[in-house]
Amino acid sequence: MRRIRLTVAYDGTNYCGWQIQPNGITIEEVLNGRLKKLTGEDIHIIGASRTDSGVHALGNVAVFDTESPIPPERMAYALNQKLPEDIVIVRSEEVPGNWHPRYQKQVRKTYEYHIYNARVLNPLKRRYSAFVSFPMDVEKMRQGAAYLTGEHDFVSFCNIRTNVEDTVRRIDGIEIEESGGTSVSGRDIVIRVTGNGFLYNMVRIIAGTLIRVGRGFYTPEKVKEILEAKERTEAGVTAPPQGLTLVGIEY
Amino acid sequence: MRRIRLTVAYDGTNYCGWQIQPNGITIEEVLNGRLKKLTGEDIHIIGASRTDSGVHALGNVAVFDTESPIPPERMAYALNQKLPEDIVIVRSEEVPGNWHPRYQKQVRKTYEYHIYNARVLNPLKRRYSAFVSFPMDVEKMRQGAAYLTGEHDFVSFCNIRTNVEDTVRRIDGIEIEESGGTSVSGRDIVIRVTGNGFLYNMVRIIAGTLIRVGRGFYTPEKVKEILEAKERTEAGVTAPPQGLTLVGIEY
Repeated sequence: MRRIRLTVAYDGTNYCGWQIQPNGITIEEVLNGRLKKLTGEDIHIIGASRTDSGVHALGNVAVFDTESPIPPERMAYALNQKLPEDIVIVRSEEVPGNWHPRYQKQVRKTYEYHIYNARVLNPLKRRYSAFVSFPMDVEKMRQGAAYLTGEHDFVSFCNIRTNVEDTVRRIDGIEIEESGGTSVSGRDIVIRVTGNGFLYNMVRIIAGTLIRVGRGFYTPEKVKEILEAKERTEAGVTAPPQGLTLVGIEY
Repeated sequence: MRRIRLTVAYDGTNYCGWQIQPNGITIEEVLNGRLKKLTGEDIHIIGASRTDSGVHALGNVAVFDTESPIPPERMAYALNQKLPEDIVIVRSEEVPGNWHPRYQKQVRKTYEYHIYNARVLNPLKRRYSAFVSFPMDVEKMRQGAAYLTGEHDFVSFCNIRTNVEDTVRRIDGIEIEESGGTSVSGRDIVIRVTGNGFLYNMVRIIAGTLIRVGRGFYTPEKVKEILEAKERTEAGVTAPPQGLTLVGIEY
């Protein structure tokens, strides 16, 4: 028996997230099904990050155990022949039999939240960005974001429908980049967040809050106030899922 | 009776191109249908550029005549309420009753061809880029592209299934930009072409040819030889449609 680690990229648009659930097709379900076809075994993969419905990934991580004689590093190629075009195995490799993608001491996750900022909708951006038609001040967004780096209790940036007890996380960095902004197409604003772990909806609540800062609806200092309030607020500022991509996980 | 000009953006993935045809839904057909709902009139729009199946646009142009009392500049908003999310009217305005989007003396069209160059497929790029897994030399592509600027007989870069007589066109500029290229995601290469008009499949054949130059399969000088041969070659190097976007038309 070998444990295989997969690095998985997907366009989440047509999936009800990672985790198997009764009301729609999920990434986990598709992978289990294709792995069964490939190996003939009943396989239940374990994912590192249970991304939400509509959220994308370039580097989610998952493991499974198999007796298959397919060489571990060839598993990616074999699986890609059977997967739909919106799921791609980027890499496959053998790991020790006790290696678990969610219980590693040292971990760094990177997410990107993409915003398309323009007067008019752009149909080529709608699947992978949140659309904001109001003018946005990126420098103010950076000032607001700066309050979030470091180790904090992020309970104010957590969906109330969660039951974790420890809401302390460490954000190593938040970068905000802008590009584009021609007369024809609008501006792309990317919020890139790296940290040792994220609470349920945390990146989307951070993005929703920073969008409010960018629009001038909140001052940058308001981010500090929200953080210090340590109150689970109803997720009224959760930015929409299609803007979010799990870029990668480093162990 | 007023003539209204629309600037139209669309994600061409799910359409059989612009022009109405028997075997699938087209942009023209959807616009005619929604205009009928909006005005109560049988409307037949006239498009500037009959983009192919799977090709996108940020600024195609179309006109129609109507008795509708809706103010011309409000027509975009009214239409967008009725259109599917992959078609957006960017602007609407009144033009003289004899203004025709295909018969203007002065015109400049800009197309972009997007390439995603990486070892592994990226499911977030597949709808709007051609995927090239071979290493590409962008500087060589620029050298090859330079032979195409100016006024030339572009018959060698034209799909054989066309019946235009005059195959002389003027390319004002071809820029090739690259960005990205991190360890996680690959490199985006954009070929931006501006000219006074393009033959059937011309931009996709130029892109396919420059991809061959980038891969080292053709020398940059081969582009000059193909141009000077003035032979309609079978469209073996036509790059795939999803990489192409009609960015805009200036009159």
